[in-house]
Amino acid sequence: MPKRVVIIGAVALGPKVACRLRRLDPDVEITVIDRDDLISYGGCGIPYYVGGDVNELEDLYSTASHARRDTEFFRTGKGITILTRVEAIAIDRKTKAVKVRHLQDGREELIGYDKLVIATGSTPVRPPFLGSDLPMVKIVSNLHDAEAIKNLLKQGKVGRAVIIGAGAIGIELAEAMTDLWGVETTLIEMADQVLPMALGKTMTRIVRRQLEEHGVRLLLSERVIRIGEDPDNGSLLVETYSGAFPCDLVVLSTGIRPNSALAVEAGLAVGRLGGILVDNRLRTNDPDIYTGGDCIEQRHLISGAHVIMPLGSLANRHGRIIADNIHGGSTLFTGTVGTFTMKVFDLGVCKAGLTFRQAIEAGFDPVFAVVSQPDHAHFYPSAQFIYMTLIADRRTRKILGIEAAGKNGPAVKARVDAVAVLLRHGVDVDEICSLETGYAPPFSSAMDVINNAGNVLDNILAGKNRPIGAAEFIEKFRADEIRTLDVREASTAAPFVEKYKERWLNIPLSELRERYGELATDQPYCILCDTAPRSYEAQVILDAKGITNTLNVQGGYAMILATDSTLL
Amino acid sequence: MPKRVVIIGAVALGPKVACRLRRLDPDVEITVIDRDDLISYGGCGIPYYVGGDVNELEDLYSTASHARRDTEFFRTGKGITILTRVEAIAIDRKTKAVKVRHLQDGREELIGYDKLVIATGSTPVRPPFLGSDLPMVKIVSNLHDAEAIKNLLKQGKVGRAVIIGAGAIGIELAEAMTDLWGVETTLIEMADQVLPMALGKTMTRIVRRQLEEHGVRLLLSERVIRIGEDPDNGSLLVETYSGAFPCDLVVLSTGIRPNSALAVEAGLAVGRLGGILVDNRLRTNDPDIYTGGDCIEQRHLISGAHVIMPLGSLANRHGRIIADNIHGGSTLFTGTVGTFTMKVFDLGVCKAGLTFRQAIEAGFDPVFAVVSQPDHAHFYPSAQFIYMTLIADRRTRKILGIEAAGKNGPAVKARVDAVAVLLRHGVDVDEICSLETGYAPPFSSAMDVINNAGNVLDNILAGKNRPIGAAEFIEKFRADEIRTLDVREASTAAPFVEKYKERWLNIPLSELRERYGELATDQPYCILCDTAPRSYEAQVILDAKGITNTLNVQGGYAMILATDSTLL
Repeated sequence: MPKRVVIIGAVALGPKVACRLRRLDPDVEITVIDRDDLISYGGCGIPYYVGGDVNELEDLYSTASHARRDTEFFRTGKGITILTRVEAIAIDRKTKAVKVRHLQDGREELIGYDKLVIATGSTPVRPPFLGSDLPMVKIVSNLHDAEAIKNLLKQGKVGRAVIIGAGAIGIELAEAMTDLWGVETTLIEMADQVLPMALGKTMTRIVRRQLEEHGVRLLLSERVIRIGEDPDNGSLLVETYSGAFPCDLVVLSTGIRPNSALAVEAGLAVGRLGGILVDNRLRTNDPDIYTGGDCIEQRHLISGAHVIMPLGSLANRHGRIIADNIHGGSTLFTGTVGTFTMKVFDLGVCKAGLTFRQAIEAGFDPVFAVVSQPDHAHFYPSAQFIYMTLIADRRTRKILGIEAAGKNGPAVKARVDAVAVLLRHGVDVDEICSLETGYAPPFSSAMDVINNAGNVLDNILAGKNRPIGAAEFIEKFRADEIRTLDVREASTAAPFVEKYKERWLNIPLSELRERYGELATDQPYCILCDTAPRSYEAQVILDAKGITNTLNVQGGYAMILATDSTLL
Repeated sequence: MPKRVVIIGAVALGPKVACRLRRLDPDVEITVIDRDDLISYGGCGIPYYVGGDVNELEDLYSTASHARRDTEFFRTGKGITILTRVEAIAIDRKTKAVKVRHLQDGREELIGYDKLVIATGSTPVRPPFLGSDLPMVKIVSNLHDAEAIKNLLKQGKVGRAVIIGAGAIGIELAEAMTDLWGVETTLIEMADQVLPMALGKTMTRIVRRQLEEHGVRLLLSERVIRIGEDPDNGSLLVETYSGAFPCDLVVLSTGIRPNSALAVEAGLAVGRLGGILVDNRLRTNDPDIYTGGDCIEQRHLISGAHVIMPLGSLANRHGRIIADNIHGGSTLFTGTVGTFTMKVFDLGVCKAGLTFRQAIEAGFDPVFAVVSQPDHAHFYPSAQFIYMTLIADRRTRKILGIEAAGKNGPAVKARVDAVAVLLRHGVDVDEICSLETGYAPPFSSAMDVINNAGNVLDNILAGKNRPIGAAEFIEKFRADEIRTLDVREASTAAPFVEKYKERWLNIPLSELRERYGELATDQPYCILCDTAPRSYEAQVILDAKGITNTLNVQGGYAMILATDSTLL
């Protein structure tokens, strides 16, 4: 057993290693060093602190029983020494010592170790355009940054804000500013969608709609050229290729990079993405040095590629594993499937695995199904829709990814987590069709949305269901390339028929076996119902009649409403 | 491909087979026969219809788009013939025909088949005690029974009711009667707990508490001797070994038996539990006869034993599989892990796999952990506790079962479903510790309750955490067999110290490393904190000091509050 363990970094991974190790070994000397004075905090809570759901900064570094997790807490309660305002400046692997500098007085010293843990995390990238370093252009890399932004908001100094980068943190901050503080918020994203790393085309539209409905101005496919400052009043001007946006505050959330410089300088192996390389015991190429969390490259279990996955949940899991292994155990971490959850106003958004685009990039031949279905039995009151994309590889039928969104967040999470945990086991479409999740009318349907996503994907793979996405349907319909066959009841379809005349044919499903002759045979039709089971059935009926020039609008009118409300 | 498919039974499995088969094959002739006139309904919705969450009986046999699923709906919309009020009275396997009787006129006829599906479901057992067949002693086996009970309630004819059997349906009916109708409801159960087939000792106490708090009178370990009827006013008297309970209505919910008589008479193989035996394509020992749902024996994938599992979710999954296989496919059903969900007033209750007792009966050496933890990050508002039992086999570390309860039902379901779907893959404790479910502060903790359940079980298996259940702790404490070491803050512990004096020692965890000398060395202590991480840490600290005569109260004071509030 090691006698002295030194840990560089005291936010998430570091304290987790320290506490678990202490519980495994009462005698080992544990020293954690950190540049900051605030430690052991829930960084993922920062947007909620800014937005007011979390009142005090202190709540983010307190335990559930309201004890402040400061150096005293760790010293007396855990027997762990945490040195704050101390920076690690070099690792000497030969003598097994970390050279540190005390930031208060510049004093330097060497701290010897038997085992070393690098828990240096990541830093938000400050993009290279002019003005990205102006005082009112902020990044959020720690609690001090969060406090500074919240103070500006509290003092009423922010009427308009621009957030650059529509990843999870950018979106959470946009929500925080709009919701509580009523800041006019503009969210600028370089990609053609929000959450480009997390979501495919359909689910990202639902999030976009949610943001816009809540008053966030969204600019996609937009690049910032520079940020200027008015010398008189300090207000900012964000210039992009398409316009200029005056504001009082800019927040940059354009991604992170792993803090691996210390490791590089110490000659540890670092990957192509800049993350430290580890084996499946989370050990670097130096057997006495472990690392995890945001500063490492992890194997993505579906693509096989290395990824940087800056998630607090993974950092905590890594922490326990590292402590076990330092203590002589053999606990493995084989990789991640990128399970991801977030709240966007009152929408829960979850994903795991690869998006359609990522699946293509990883060399798969992906096929996807999109479904919409209430979160529980339709006859039980207060159902909320769940919208879902399920992606499989055409040849192997293995599931590659799942994405879902809906207003009952925990219910969305239930479905995505159930598939997420199976991904590493190589789950196929057939297993999803029969997935044995719990059923009771208040909480699910007998054939739950997840089973139906499997069923639809199975039908698509079998060539029985020829789908078209809701967005593509709208495009083609507007371009007059297709007609709509609406198989809902006459009363539901009436306003559409009135608006679109002969381009919107209504034959309720129950009458289709008799009335299919009314279809124009030289016209392609997109078949539409509420949520797509009836339109699929209509497609099957028409196929049997030899009318095969049809596409089934995935997720039905519910999906159109969730992504685009302008058909009526 | 078969030309004529006959299906006996039109509730859940039957219509599912018929509809899927029609979508696979536009030409096959499909005939479904049923004794009843109401068909294709959500039987699991009956308690919610009785209780008023579902207004009209019709809602239970309507589609999401409000079409009534009657014979006309199936005939015109699906091309499926459903014969109602027609009873199957014999299967002639030689000539491949079903002999049926039209209940309206007694006419009999033979209906020939190429493939036959038995979807006869199950019937509630009417126990053999005297009076179980009185007119006001009801069972709920179909919508007519449900309507009759609701009419009695509506007419104000039920002031007091006795429900016999505290399984899921008995509990749901007790809730329905108490909640909306204000009926004085007594629930009588033969076993020493509610939900004896579904839950272990700890979780069942939470459900019991919930029932009692909502005014249901609960009698456990209680046997009914007879039910008498007052000839003057028709009121009933339920006599048990411990008393007599007058009431206006009795509902029996003492389990079901599979409707397999027809299969038995036709010489099909039936198992020890009375269910029809099937292969993994859901085919009986006659290759032209398929069956599924409540009337079959399924393999439990953890115990390996046969079980009758009357769940609408499984019947629907079976339906799709049977249709695929009739159509020449090869879709497999290998068994069930018994995933189960229900609502008990505002509590969600979920389980999968085996209970501790069932695990012993199945020959395992089970070890379990009980944890309590908020459903999301403690710093984010409105957290609700999730209480959880996780059970593993000592030797293999394989998970055998999981049970959980909490007021955020969908969040409880998320955790249990994630483990449920893994059970058939042989998941072990270590996989649960690192289970990659989604994290965001509004929806989960970085180390989620499910991970912590794994961690605690890992620590127990390693002998580092010596646990005692909350209920056993209270028993031993009341019997003066142990003292309590309360490691919460002084202000929290004060009222307990005041009440129990020297039997309730308070040393906050942060002071334990200095003050452990205050413990009486000749006394066993149970260590208590809010939710058990601090008490576990205290146990580890004391172990290092040589004080090992301690037990850690599982789930902490949160679990005591959830199961028994009488300590203060």
